[in-house]
Amino acid sequence: MHFSSDNWAGAHPRIAESLTRHAAGFEPAYGGGDLDAAVTRRFCEIFEREVAVFFVGTGTAANALSLTLHARPGGIAFCHRGAHIMEDECGAPEYLSGGGRLRAVDGPFGKFSADALERSVARFFPQIVHDGRACAISITQATEAGTVYSLDEIEGISAVAGKFALPLHMDGARFANALVSLDTTPAEMTWKRGVDMVSFGGTKNGCWCAEAIVLFDTSKADELAFIRKRAAQLFSKSRFIAAQFDAYFADDLWLETARHANATAAALADVLRTAPLTRLAWEPQANEVFGIMRRDTMDRALAAGARFYEWHVPADFAEPIAPDEVLCRFVTSFATSRGEIDTFARLVGN
Amino acid sequence: MHFSSDNWAGAHPRIAESLTRHAAGFEPAYGGGDLDAAVTRRFCEIFEREVAVFFVGTGTAANALSLTLHARPGGIAFCHRGAHIMEDECGAPEYLSGGGRLRAVDGPFGKFSADALERSVARFFPQIVHDGRACAISITQATEAGTVYSLDEIEGISAVAGKFALPLHMDGARFANALVSLDTTPAEMTWKRGVDMVSFGGTKNGCWCAEAIVLFDTSKADELAFIRKRAAQLFSKSRFIAAQFDAYFADDLWLETARHANATAAALADVLRTAPLTRLAWEPQANEVFGIMRRDTMDRALAAGARFYEWHVPADFAEPIAPDEVLCRFVTSFATSRGEIDTFARLVGN
Amino acid sequence: MHFSSDNWAGAHPRIAESLTRHAAGFEPAYGGGDLDAAVTRRFCEIFEREVAVFFVGTGTAANALSLTLHARPGGIAFCHRGAHIMEDECGAPEYLSGGGRLRAVDGPFGKFSADALERSVARFFPQIVHDGRACAISITQATEAGTVYSLDEIEGISAVAGKFALPLHMDGARFANALVSLDTTPAEMTWKRGVDMVSFGGTKNGCWCAEAIVLFDTSKADELAFIRKRAAQLFSKSRFIAAQFDAYFADDLWLETARHANATAAALADVLRTAPLTRLAWEPQANEVFGIMRRDTMDRALAAGARFYEWHVPADFAEPIAPDEVLCRFVTSFATSRGEIDTFARLVGN
Amino acid sequence: MHFSSDNWAGAHPRIAESLTRHAAGFEPAYGGGDLDAAVTRRFCEIFEREVAVFFVGTGTAANALSLTLHARPGGIAFCHRGAHIMEDECGAPEYLSGGGRLRAVDGPFGKFSADALERSVARFFPQIVHDGRACAISITQATEAGTVYSLDEIEGISAVAGKFALPLHMDGARFANALVSLDTTPAEMTWKRGVDMVSFGGTKNGCWCAEAIVLFDTSKADELAFIRKRAAQLFSKSRFIAAQFDAYFADDLWLETARHANATAAALADVLRTAPLTRLAWEPQANEVFGIMRRDTMDRALAAGARFYEWHVPADFAEPIAPDEVLCRFVTSFATSRGEIDTFARLVGN
Repeated sequence: MHFSSDNWAGAHPRIAESLTRHAAGFEPAYGGGDLDAAVTRRFCEIFEREVAVFFVGTGTAANALSLTLHARPGGIAFCHRGAHIMEDECGAPEYLSGGGRLRAVDGPFGKFSADALERSVARFFPQIVHDGRACAISITQATEAGTVYSLDEIEGISAVAGKFALPLHMDGARFANALVSLDTTPAEMTWKRGVDMVSFGGTKNGCWCAEAIVLFDTSKADELAFIRKRAAQLFSKSRFIAAQFDAYFADDLWLETARHANATAAALADVLRTAPLTRLAWEPQANEVFGIMRRDTMDRALAAGARFYEWHVPADFAEPIAPDEVLCRFVTSFATSRGEIDTFARLVGN
Repeated sequence: MHFSSDNWAGAHPRIAESLTRHAAGFEPAYGGGDLDAAVTRRFCEIFEREVAVFFVGTGTAANALSLTLHARPGGIAFCHRGAHIMEDECGAPEYLSGGGRLRAVDGPFGKFSADALERSVARFFPQIVHDGRACAISITQATEAGTVYSLDEIEGISAVAGKFALPLHMDGARFANALVSLDTTPAEMTWKRGVDMVSFGGTKNGCWCAEAIVLFDTSKADELAFIRKRAAQLFSKSRFIAAQFDAYFADDLWLETARHANATAAALADVLRTAPLTRLAWEPQANEVFGIMRRDTMDRALAAGARFYEWHVPADFAEPIAPDEVLCRFVTSFATSRGEIDTFARLVGN
Repeated sequence: MHFSSDNWAGAHPRIAESLTRHAAGFEPAYGGGDLDAAVTRRFCEIFEREVAVFFVGTGTAANALSLTLHARPGGIAFCHRGAHIMEDECGAPEYLSGGGRLRAVDGPFGKFSADALERSVARFFPQIVHDGRACAISITQATEAGTVYSLDEIEGISAVAGKFALPLHMDGARFANALVSLDTTPAEMTWKRGVDMVSFGGTKNGCWCAEAIVLFDTSKADELAFIRKRAAQLFSKSRFIAAQFDAYFADDLWLETARHANATAAALADVLRTAPLTRLAWEPQANEVFGIMRRDTMDRALAAGARFYEWHVPADFAEPIAPDEVLCRFVTSFATSRGEIDTFARLVGN
Repeated sequence: MHFSSDNWAGAHPRIAESLTRHAAGFEPAYGGGDLDAAVTRRFCEIFEREVAVFFVGTGTAANALSLTLHARPGGIAFCHRGAHIMEDECGAPEYLSGGGRLRAVDGPFGKFSADALERSVARFFPQIVHDGRACAISITQATEAGTVYSLDEIEGISAVAGKFALPLHMDGARFANALVSLDTTPAEMTWKRGVDMVSFGGTKNGCWCAEAIVLFDTSKADELAFIRKRAAQLFSKSRFIAAQFDAYFADDLWLETARHANATAAALADVLRTAPLTRLAWEPQANEVFGIMRRDTMDRALAAGARFYEWHVPADFAEPIAPDEVLCRFVTSFATSRGEIDTFARLVGN
């Protein structure tokens, strides 16, 4: 019953096999090899256009360096209050961007609306040095609340970004989970809706460590090359990240693993919705599920070996929650089995 | 004939096998798993004392974050003019340390003497804010010139560090190559000689990406944990770095691969020393060899498929070198074969 | 009718006279002169203890460098949502601290309570690297809302700071205004209540540019000396800042100018409270007054030559405010005359 | 006998008078007042073109923020080994630029040649991320060695800058001294020779604290406005810096004070050249003079009340200097009297 996080899982066998297959032989270091080039072309096909691709080691690096690319003196990047860059990266975005600031935008279920964003951005005037100035907007897709921005919502947000001439970044640590949830294409979910750059995550969906910054404006690639190297994120044996992505995309493995994770999340949501001792906090749309239960129920489940986290109740949480209740987060992955969910179901009275 | 760099090689089969073996199952993320703990204990055994170990993704990260741990306002870290941190890291040490400065110390064959270091440090007075102040010393072992500091030389340098109360960092991107060259133990080459922290590199010696910061003063571990996370170098599936080190240390694989690299370097040095068209620039002590040849010889070798780099002649280069001659660097690795060296020997007239 | 800000005023004649008096002759640069030493001793007398004093050029510098002194990787400084460091310094605290983060604490009338602070700090655990960690607390005295923390309130906040072992910084850009408002002593308002460092402002209260960082823990002085120099805030002809403070403290000029500013603010508050066309937003305690009026009244006053700013209504504003009403800020200073207030009173119907 | 530095002098009476004259009345803060605008126009007249002018508090700030304007990831700014930014600013350029690097270029008498610069810059290739990349060139005029770049030399250097598309910064802490030494105009010494920005210093030449960044490319002004504010260098009562420059330029006071300083330096050079116990190290061209004498002579002069500094002998010092000799620096200013020089002459045997 491993629901702590999708990064508690290991690597998918086909990812592991690819790493082994590409272990032998010599290749130019620092991304100069054939495999890196081939995988970059694969990214272009997947996104149906020319893109610049920069492999990095962690999602935090992908996010922080994307924002660093657009950092400006006094710059403020807007994100949801619960965004990973705000809550879970130890200030990496501020640090790596040379002192930039993040500003929280509120909204229920891990998403903010275009209107809320516009109100938040509009109070900064481009010429008033005291306040600082807007420099970027970041959304997470799928969100940290397990929800997914619709294509229309993304378009609405990018319209605000465009109005203020701001780049729109998408933290796609769970890009594949959102993609299959919306049943759309990478192009439709990103640049066709005005997204400028993506932190494209493979790690949570079956890779070991395969993250990439994808730029739709390739004129910024030269700059990002220096940004990445300066941040110690240029891997000498870059081919091994390429090898992971190579297997990730082959035969649509990435969509298969994401569908599996989403499906097991839906099954877990069913359990939480219907079990006598739990209820569902809100409807999941990807591979993170939030449930509410009594603290003693949670303690019992943990004692029985279930692994999941109590969660901070977000500020704009709409559900009434009793004093003895807790909000809990469950995450599924490519490696989650139906058996684990059945076992958990029995634990909570189903 | 792949002599470009040891990071053009892939991963040793036993490293690759370990990655696959540890791919399945769930483990706490961010270094909390059993394998991470076991490998940390292995580091303690290898260094014969309690150490704190922080896995990171690149050698640049290991170096820059080691120096960041000791950064101070106005701080200056001293290193050899040809040090990797000075020449090859795109300013990562300055950037990640919040604007620290590196100061070059000169010395032949990639090493500086204790005396040269002392003269360089002594001109900074701890209370004069204008000049800045010394904050760390860094040596590379084996050096970028393929040489190795003797234990006495390390001790001499650490005595200077101690005199000025400065931490001594060792860039051990080729730690194993130096270790087997000196036929000594990790403890003797480091903390027993006054080294305070090591960038412990596995990547160039057969791993895919396995680098670790090793602290002998474990009281600084809490601080480094935040430094690493903030720099986006905390890997969620940390177990895969652990898995590499696990195989690296098992049955002394790391010493075996380092000995192989050094031995092939020695063979290559023999070729350069004795071939009619080349000469040896200086005696190698690890797995980097520097030779001198006419430019047309170099061009012919490159055209014939040999892979190596022309090198900048260092400022204090003692050998007379003719205008039509070039200095070239050759690097061997665990994957270098005797056949490659024989082929090269034929190319240069042996 | 200059109520825009207290920094629209010039310099008090006695400050100007002191600058002229100290213009001639030679003095050691960079703070090494006799006048600097004498003024530092004066600070010690005023605070009734040994203090370390660092002159800087702007209040933003004093604040940001105070926080930089306590910056830590992943560090978060807590301040009121409306704090100057949060709203008006263009990200200087984040930038100069190497990427630190500010976190807003809410509370009415520009102040937060000890309880609100504790709730905000308590969610950061010292060992969890993902979230970052608390590193400092900052309060503004007098606040940006023209209110003043009572001695008990300061003590309550410092108790929270102490519980989490965090330094407590006081942004005293309007230190004197708060001091005379509370009718207390500098010692009572600061270190006797647990404050660790003060941005001691003279500029808004009659100096040209005289700001100082006052440290009660003098063991940190060496570090701050480098922090100040590195931030380009060490003035070569430091004596001229000293000359301002010399006159500022002489014959309690600073208390006199602060009392005048507060008294004229109180008179202005009376006008706003009683005039037919205005009302007082809340009771001022120092030299900033907030009033509410119809937008057309404001426009008329501005057209008639009154200088003041429309203000953003703070998030937790308790007063009902009509759609056609605006919140306005008025600031008085040593240079504000009763005549200006009388003129304004006539404008708004008194 | 105050020859320690030109910043040991106070303020010229006409500067002091201007400060007093502008002390009364209200002015928009942060540079929005009439006097600021008038002084900016005066700068345009002096430079015979449109310029953007940013007042800052220190020369270190002017230099570091000029370089920050042109900072790039992995960026390297080239300057003379003895440049103030390299030797005397506690790492402010690196820190404020977010981790940029300075690289020393050598050359005798405080100047580097266009050729030396070109060799130094040429080894950095714009696309090689490992090495970093050139981002700016900085020269000091007059230099730290009391010499002055000729107009031809500046033009030669700017040609190299242009070849590599790099901005050329001039540290003009002693701009006026160089100007009158060359008997040329500000326009001829700067933008007509390819200089892009100037740290325009008034402090060392009779102001209290009046420094300005002058940009010839005004399209960068918006960016620099944020850079200045973020670095805590935007003064609220900016009019007082303006007031200093107002008097500085009036009736060519600045040229008069610079001529006086240079003339007294020349007189001091005569003393050092001809006195039995001293010799001149090299010919001064501005207001800094370097002499050589026996250590006991120096000690005697200091004991007799002369104030000057022993200086580090620069690496490429051409003069033979005996083991018991020392190199000493003497600086004159607007406040230096002929009497002081006569007294010193008697001390050294003239």
